[in-house]
Amino acid sequence: MNMTRSTTAHLAPVAPVAPAPVAPVAPSAGALRPLGLDEVAITGGFWHRRQEVNGEATLAHIEHWLEREGWLANLDLAASDPAALASGRRGREFSDSEVYKYLEALAWEIGRRGGADASGDAIAPAGAAAVDALEARFRAIVARVAAAQEPDGYLNTRFGRPGQQPRWSDLEWGHELYCLGHLFQAAVARARTRPGADDGLVEVARRAADLVCEVFGAGGDPRICGHAEVELGLVELGRALGEPRYVDQARRFVERHGRGTLADIEWGRSYYQDDVAVRDAEALRGHAVRANYLSAGAVDVAIEAGDDELLGALHAQWDRTVERRTYVTGGQGSHHQDEAFGEDWELPSDRAYSETCAGVASVMFSWRLLLAHGDARHADLIERTLFNVVETSPDASGTAFYYANTLHQRVPGAPADADTVSPRAHSSLRAPWFEVSCCPPNTARTFASLAAYVASADASGIQLHQYAPASIRTRLDDGQEVAIDVATEYPASGRVAVRVLTDASSPWRLSLRVPAWATGARLVVRPADGSPSQAIDADAHGRAGTVSFERSWRSGDEVELGLPMRSRFTAPDARVDAVRGCLAVERGPEVYALESVDLGGTALEASDFADLRVDPAVPPRETDGDAGAPRVVVRLVDPRTDASADVPLVPYHAWAERGPSTMRVWLPVLGV
Amino acid sequence: MNMTRSTTAHLAPVAPVAPAPVAPVAPSAGALRPLGLDEVAITGGFWHRRQEVNGEATLAHIEHWLEREGWLANLDLAASDPAALASGRRGREFSDSEVYKYLEALAWEIGRRGGADASGDAIAPAGAAAVDALEARFRAIVARVAAAQEPDGYLNTRFGRPGQQPRWSDLEWGHELYCLGHLFQAAVARARTRPGADDGLVEVARRAADLVCEVFGAGGDPRICGHAEVELGLVELGRALGEPRYVDQARRFVERHGRGTLADIEWGRSYYQDDVAVRDAEALRGHAVRANYLSAGAVDVAIEAGDDELLGALHAQWDRTVERRTYVTGGQGSHHQDEAFGEDWELPSDRAYSETCAGVASVMFSWRLLLAHGDARHADLIERTLFNVVETSPDASGTAFYYANTLHQRVPGAPADADTVSPRAHSSLRAPWFEVSCCPPNTARTFASLAAYVASADASGIQLHQYAPASIRTRLDDGQEVAIDVATEYPASGRVAVRVLTDASSPWRLSLRVPAWATGARLVVRPADGSPSQAIDADAHGRAGTVSFERSWRSGDEVELGLPMRSRFTAPDARVDAVRGCLAVERGPEVYALESVDLGGTALEASDFADLRVDPAVPPRETDGDAGAPRVVVRLVDPRTDASADVPLVPYHAWAERGPSTMRVWLPVLGV
Repeated sequence: MNMTRSTTAHLAPVAPVAPAPVAPVAPSAGALRPLGLDEVAITGGFWHRRQEVNGEATLAHIEHWLEREGWLANLDLAASDPAALASGRRGREFSDSEVYKYLEALAWEIGRRGGADASGDAIAPAGAAAVDALEARFRAIVARVAAAQEPDGYLNTRFGRPGQQPRWSDLEWGHELYCLGHLFQAAVARARTRPGADDGLVEVARRAADLVCEVFGAGGDPRICGHAEVELGLVELGRALGEPRYVDQARRFVERHGRGTLADIEWGRSYYQDDVAVRDAEALRGHAVRANYLSAGAVDVAIEAGDDELLGALHAQWDRTVERRTYVTGGQGSHHQDEAFGEDWELPSDRAYSETCAGVASVMFSWRLLLAHGDARHADLIERTLFNVVETSPDASGTAFYYANTLHQRVPGAPADADTVSPRAHSSLRAPWFEVSCCPPNTARTFASLAAYVASADASGIQLHQYAPASIRTRLDDGQEVAIDVATEYPASGRVAVRVLTDASSPWRLSLRVPAWATGARLVVRPADGSPSQAIDADAHGRAGTVSFERSWRSGDEVELGLPMRSRFTAPDARVDAVRGCLAVERGPEVYALESVDLGGTALEASDFADLRVDPAVPPRETDGDAGAPRVVVRLVDPRTDASADVPLVPYHAWAERGPSTMRVWLPVLGV
Repeated sequence: MNMTRSTTAHLAPVAPVAPAPVAPVAPSAGALRPLGLDEVAITGGFWHRRQEVNGEATLAHIEHWLEREGWLANLDLAASDPAALASGRRGREFSDSEVYKYLEALAWEIGRRGGADASGDAIAPAGAAAVDALEARFRAIVARVAAAQEPDGYLNTRFGRPGQQPRWSDLEWGHELYCLGHLFQAAVARARTRPGADDGLVEVARRAADLVCEVFGAGGDPRICGHAEVELGLVELGRALGEPRYVDQARRFVERHGRGTLADIEWGRSYYQDDVAVRDAEALRGHAVRANYLSAGAVDVAIEAGDDELLGALHAQWDRTVERRTYVTGGQGSHHQDEAFGEDWELPSDRAYSETCAGVASVMFSWRLLLAHGDARHADLIERTLFNVVETSPDASGTAFYYANTLHQRVPGAPADADTVSPRAHSSLRAPWFEVSCCPPNTARTFASLAAYVASADASGIQLHQYAPASIRTRLDDGQEVAIDVATEYPASGRVAVRVLTDASSPWRLSLRVPAWATGARLVVRPADGSPSQAIDADAHGRAGTVSFERSWRSGDEVELGLPMRSRFTAPDARVDAVRGCLAVERGPEVYALESVDLGGTALEASDFADLRVDPAVPPRETDGDAGAPRVVVRLVDPRTDASADVPLVPYHAWAERGPSTMRVWLPVLGV
């Protein structure tokens, strides 16, 4: 095992950069090199609005509930009166992990606001006072975490104290290693955004990781955790701290999956991916969050170990899962009962579970494959999932969330009480907090670090994967500094304008992703020196899913990508039984939904929602909407009354913002 | 409250008969009077084969597993060493109820075999030795039950002993009253099949019922049981023993539903029907077994109380539930997670839960409404459910069972081990026993008492509801004795021949149900005296769903009902999203299924099961099959290869008898 060099023949080795990118993932090899929050900032538009709400409202909301539910107080009790934990501890067995995810989100937010640029050249400066306040909150919680850690490094409020179950006695359901995985991710975020900070979180993580290696290392406890997560946490901590032992331990955990070291359960060992070895599986299966975290960690392990076979297996599993086990929204996991993937083609809209956290985890898995292979399909799924799962969870205010993201709401749900904890997937309206509240902090850490998913670099140049107004400053492998700005109103508009701000010392290639739906995309290059523009038809150019142009760029050069944003009908695969005879409507990366509140005032106001049919002969059309975003309208018919009306749809991520309503993504077609 | 007279204006009061029918239900009022096992016997054919397997194999199988899993031994421990129960008890909290359901099945089986005819004129005699053996098993278990009862009548092995939770401390999940409800049903079966027997079961039940009335009566504990069942058990025990107090208590429990006396839970109080008063609900909802048991008990209460409003509400709930929340098989409850009904039209074939016990419970609810109103639609649903849910659960040998009855099996399941307990709904093959093993004894008690659902009587004569070779001997309200024999090969054939064996002292009417699917049914009456036959076109005759003929019948008169059994395509309601663009195939009362093993040797052998389409232009056709039953064949096409073949279907209840396979009931239509 070699931490810094890949033996994977088809992977282009990436020269180590120092320091590692200020980003969640920093593989030592792969097709693409991630850029950090000190290199990319989202400066406006759709995702910037979400980042601002996340930073200003969601983070405080999460901390409020962590205190209110006593999940932070559990740590204090562990420190001050461990014997009282057995009776005094509150929350589910994995509540510590929500604290760590919150810390991770805070760390990225501090980094996003410009407090941590190693070069001293902050690209997204924010008021120092705001950053200081975040920093103070971060440090206060880290102090409580550190105080709860036992002398040998063990850290968990649910096990091991007097009257509690012994440590590691319930790996199936105890989530001890899972919690530590999130601790490690938080420490990585801290190490990369505030290297050398004296708060102590990195040391807490190191001591815990050392203990994990000791207990579960070669010759030790041969089992795995019932919820994957520690694998990817260990790899990244190893990368961040230069500790090959942690990567080795992650590899050990990945390789142990499928050996049946965990007990069989009602849903089978597939629930925690202990049924089949990772390299032997054909598709993601079982609990969808577990499956994606494990797959993400397995990619990390494969990269560090130069294990082509494992990486190939994961790639094939991704292909099959995306083809057969993924909703049009990017959502994964169709079962409520076990929060699990169904069989191939088992994708009911009714009670689609599509857990928010599975969306977050899917983005993590796809991002790692994208870095490994540079295949734009992985970025396509990331975009689909970000817009239609991760963004669907929080409401506009960032203080209420979906745990599950159904595609069909048959009965208007009762409004969730903003002051009450909800069962995990109960309400059809977003809820402020859940008994199992993994989703709010999981979206928060994703949004805070979102800039890291926008672009990457490789030996040839820079790749844009996600479209948002952005500022990108990095150093290419040949040492030249490059700066570009991206301007766009995406996804309202499909025009993406890139302006080069630096003169190249040698030619480099700018690559832009062309989403699979964007047939007819065009790239226009407008040199600043007045020489003729060049237009490139993306359909006929370059490798699948990208369009690119190499040039000795000069400051002022402009590149404009035009993505055709026509709203469109999407037909399901004929093998998905649950939505046969239906069409969905998409526009750009956004899936649209019919919401009953939009029938008010139309000729269909009195119709039964279940009777409505879409007229497939009338393509969805766009009218001017509010705030520059077009309104997408379809022709609906009620065959019982022959009434029809043109009814606006809403982006799926924006549904249920106007009170209780019924909703459907897949619209039954008239005449079927 | 009046036990013997109805104040329900539209219900025809039924003169009390003495003794009450040897049957599970004996309302004091209603349109129809049930006939007992001493009046009706199934003498051959489809259901007789199932009854024989049930009596000879299933009952012994159940007792074997009750012993093996320690659920009987729990009773012994309660008697011999109650302090050891807390640690020594085995099984789930409701395991006592399986013992009682088994006792009920044994009692009916003893009755069915002719040991209990009050008139001394056994109509289905069997070897006395066999009956004696059943009787001995029955008495041995009753002795163990009786020994476990506490002095004040309390009986449950899970609560109240040293180290156990206190009695009635967990009504939400504890199932104490539920278990007693099953005890009461067993005692009713015993009281009616062996009146005056000295085994003591009836006294055990009486003591327990007295305690329930004391604890939960007026001014007592105001709550209900989290699983309905005690309601119908109490009513029937009250009817059987002439104890109005029990009926009053049942009414009290029914009326308490919807008051929120049980805790709110993740799935809401609708799970145990504590969200809305029974009389205010619009449809069955929540846990499907609970909902049907409660509804059945509520009909009983409404009948005894002369409560028209309640009865009307239940009738309307049945209508809506059958229209919108019931599978083509009659199956109810689409959710795995909470074993619950979905919303209207939420009927996915994928993971259709359709619990066997919900089918049993639905038969109980429908039967009570049929007796109340005489509406053939209730008998139609009973037939649909018996053939396609209750009969689907056990395999041909009667020793392996489905807990859930999916309508779409996408992946062949691993064979269930005949020696291993299964999780409740895990395997796609039938399993010998479950951790929650309610279904095997529930089917057993239903099959053992099945003759009670075949026919009824009223002031005008006799009604045939279910078709099977049968012998019927009863006394009409006017005192005359009537005997008829039914001969049929139903459902292989639609010919039902009735032969009158007695001379009438006054005219009476013979009514025969005409199932809703049987368009073009004809009734032919052939007098024994050689006078001309009379033919009646059922479509143009009589009240909906029946055809009848009144006559001063003479011995030797023959009546022949011809039900057109053409196999047919059935289209789903357009509002059921999950099977849009599909057709099912039915023949008579049987739903058919496509099973992958039948593709072997056809041009579609190599096709992906998910790609197959049915050609709607080629109606299902019948060829000669084995054992006289026709084979139903459809034309299937694989649009990917254009290959097509005529492929036989199997009755849904007979699927998965030939090893692992994939299966689907709803066939996607070519071209949609």
